[in-house]
Amino acid sequence: MNRAIVLLSGGMDSAVTLAYMQRSGFDCIALSFDYGQRHRVELEAADRVATSRGVRERVVQHIDLRAFGGSALTQEIAVPKDRDLGGTTEINGVGPSEIPITYVPARNTIFLALALACAEVRSARDIAIGVNAVDYSGYPDCRPEFIEAFARLANLATRAGVESAQGEAVGSDPARGRDSRRGAICIHAPLQRLTKVGIVRLGLELKVDFALTSSCYDPLAGGRPCQHCDACVLRARGFAGAGAADPLLG
Amino acid sequence: MNRAIVLLSGGMDSAVTLAYMQRSGFDCIALSFDYGQRHRVELEAADRVATSRGVRERVVQHIDLRAFGGSALTQEIAVPKDRDLGGTTEINGVGPSEIPITYVPARNTIFLALALACAEVRSARDIAIGVNAVDYSGYPDCRPEFIEAFARLANLATRAGVESAQGEAVGSDPARGRDSRRGAICIHAPLQRLTKVGIVRLGLELKVDFALTSSCYDPLAGGRPCQHCDACVLRARGFAGAGAADPLLG
Repeated sequence: MNRAIVLLSGGMDSAVTLAYMQRSGFDCIALSFDYGQRHRVELEAADRVATSRGVRERVVQHIDLRAFGGSALTQEIAVPKDRDLGGTTEINGVGPSEIPITYVPARNTIFLALALACAEVRSARDIAIGVNAVDYSGYPDCRPEFIEAFARLANLATRAGVESAQGEAVGSDPARGRDSRRGAICIHAPLQRLTKVGIVRLGLELKVDFALTSSCYDPLAGGRPCQHCDACVLRARGFAGAGAADPLLG
Repeated sequence: MNRAIVLLSGGMDSAVTLAYMQRSGFDCIALSFDYGQRHRVELEAADRVATSRGVRERVVQHIDLRAFGGSALTQEIAVPKDRDLGGTTEINGVGPSEIPITYVPARNTIFLALALACAEVRSARDIAIGVNAVDYSGYPDCRPEFIEAFARLANLATRAGVESAQGEAVGSDPARGRDSRRGAICIHAPLQRLTKVGIVRLGLELKVDFALTSSCYDPLAGGRPCQHCDACVLRARGFAGAGAADPLLG
């Protein structure tokens, strides 16, 4: 059984990504980050999701991004509410035109770099991340070209990459599943081209318990979602379009 | 004055890289990592080097790679001594054919990812790293193709990359100095194609005080170099070839 490292934030997207990788036959290790985020309640959500899905191992990496500062997610800056996130359709959503203050500098680069180290030590050749470039906040490190560039880097950076066939460019098209070359590292981003509606539908099909997840960037007392930050707005859009009720708002 | 983030380990190569970037006119911020390395004495060396070179700011990022394990540099595994590091000449050295146990999984990927976050927050577009692919230990993440792939990634991952011209491939040839496109992030690796002899000569020319540096992977009591690990062997080769005495062995 192939082993995969799945980045698990505790949000809706990463929970669906985990379920998708499990259905694809991977033995999953869940990797979460305690990076000084204000919405630390998501780490508890990640615990609940990992437990409910029966993952073999859960790793929490501590890394204090507050030393660098620069984002509303790690500093005492107001999280923007009720932003215009652009029109969206189920076929082809359109993201917002500018990068918001909630963007954490180089976050996905750092997370994927650490996942790569974890994969290398655990002899995993597969890494999965729940990025989405349709109904999203406009972060540059969620785009397909970013994921492709990381996959290329990963195969140059590591023992696995060096030991597998060299020289040739490596793709990360999730439609192909694993990279066709034996031993190459593959970055899976199965939600990349889905809308939030599509993600909710996929999650329901995979029996993801959305009641265990947490999406809000700025939770109220008791961890209840604020319902106005980008993450809450996008989540609501997903459930509404899928004709389902969000169990967190029940 | 352009600001640059310089990765400063406290070893010989990073000290020369810092001096090189300063001579190139950059206002340098020194970034070091406390990653659970056994040779933590190098962090004190980094302090001394940063002070002696008058850097504007010194950042130490804590990150515990021991959670992943997998390397003699972070675990209680013996550091290999007196390895055959391949023949070398001043023109074209040849590295060893296999990746040694001292390789830390994905280390330079992680370090550069964190440097990228630091650069983004500090409004720096330049990052410098003292990797060398001639007289080196054979780590995959020291090769020029790795540095080029990281530069491409950096320009897709960040606000700076998005705001600069998009679409076009980005080079990182250190001979060109900065990337020609305004606003693009450039990864400088000025020692990439030098031998250890060339690095020692460049350092002497730039008045680097090698007495302040520390290269050994497995220091003896008092921080004295073991003289048998890869780093010590390569350093000795550099000083011998340059016809200079290593002040650490005085």
